Amino acid sequence: MRIDILTLFPEMFSSLEHSIVGRARKSEKIEVNFHNFRDFATNTQKHVDDMPYGGGQGMLLMPQPIFDTMASFPHENARVLMMDPAGCKFDQAFAEELATEDQVVFLCGHYEGFDERIKTLVTDEVSLGDYVLTGGEVAAAVMIDATVRLMPNVLGKKASHEDDSFSSGLLEYPQYTRPEDFRGLKVPEVLMSGHHENIRKWRLRESLAKTQRLRPDLLEKYELNAEETELLKGLKNED
Amino acid sequence: MRIDILTLFPEMFSSLEHSIVGRARKSEKIEVNFHNFRDFATNTQKHVDDMPYGGGQGMLLMPQPIFDTMASFPHENARVLMMDPAGCKFDQAFAEELATEDQVVFLCGHYEGFDERIKTLVTDEVSLGDYVLTGGEVAAAVMIDATVRLMPNVLGKKASHEDDSFSSGLLEYPQYTRPEDFRGLKVPEVLMSGHHENIRKWRLRESLAKTQRLRPDLLEKYELNAEETELLKGLKNED
Repeated sequence: MRIDILTLFPEMFSSLEHSIVGRARKSEKIEVNFHNFRDFATNTQKHVDDMPYGGGQGMLLMPQPIFDTMASFPHENARVLMMDPAGCKFDQAFAEELATEDQVVFLCGHYEGFDERIKTLVTDEVSLGDYVLTGGEVAAAVMIDATVRLMPNVLGKKASHEDDSFSSGLLEYPQYTRPEDFRGLKVPEVLMSGHHENIRKWRLRESLAKTQRLRPDLLEKYELNAEETELLKGLKNED
Repeated sequence: MRIDILTLFPEMFSSLEHSIVGRARKSEKIEVNFHNFRDFATNTQKHVDDMPYGGGQGMLLMPQPIFDTMASFPHENARVLMMDPAGCKFDQAFAEELATEDQVVFLCGHYEGFDERIKTLVTDEVSLGDYVLTGGEVAAAVMIDATVRLMPNVLGKKASHEDDSFSSGLLEYPQYTRPEDFRGLKVPEVLMSGHHENIRKWRLRESLAKTQRLRPDLLEKYELNAEETELLKGLKNED
């Protein structure tokens, strides 16, 4: 996958140099190109933003530097993502879709808004969540992280994503590692029983209980099978 | 505000050195401390993770290194946030709450899960959104960015947050800056009319239309005043 990032702050992306994304770059599974659109500003002061027409606070990114940056590299069939708190919400399904693309372009504004005409260059206006950031850089870093880990052969066995929260539609069950007794805090006995069926059932029950408690919205969208319906009934009777 | 970050990858946080968060550090509005919990592992190989009891893929962070790191710095009244896709969702209200705290601790796992007992150290399990990341580092960077910009005197006038999407409950209206005509793409005439009341009305109408189109869920939660109800009726009649 080719990733192109339009940003005034390429130095904010150190997260892409380390760990799993860093390794994916070294093994050439992804290629990351930074484009500082200030380099493309044609005005003598290299300004990239200006005041909004009609008044109002804040500055807006001007169309010219962005249009000319986009024209400087090939991106015929690319997904072009604008980081925008007013966009559609980034989620796991979106990351899975992006992971199949050959090229993804990230357009990062930095506390300025975007001139509306810049959106004619864009395939997706995307928001990371319902919060406002000082710039699109940290949002793009998150989207790249979530996407790259889903690409084939990027995660090793050690960091499999098969058991991820969300990939099943339920939140993950509680997990424990050594020691069995840590300063008086103990691992539930069932997990050390070696009884696979009991462990499976305990985990499913805990997943259901946790999802019901923390994210009832996920449970509403989830299709329960007969066993899960039964376990959930049991949980309700305990309340 | 004092910020403490428990992480195996402090070098992934370059975003905190630049721009608005970087300036808030230089002017001592925030202090950021990194704690690499591998330094606290008591086993000779400095391992921080181990296999889950009861089987399953993936590794889990062991309690000991995290407990001992937490014991190494003061955090009596701190909010202690665990980055966890199964946590409650981070949003603007949460950022506003954090912005009033004296100390916030971020606990970042890295593709491993957490041993459940680590949660006894934590005040909030927080998720950035419905997607899975290779680690909590990029998530913590986003939460810090969203929080720090809301602290008093951190944003200058140039980057005010009064007009933010979400702070009004509606998405922001389209904005335009110079030039009036960019390669044939024109600024809407009303914005250059100088007629403040017409501009206000146009913007409100566009905000409503955009919110209705992209985020009807926000509109459902929003309390419409008489003017907004009228404008929205007008929009529906156009469909």
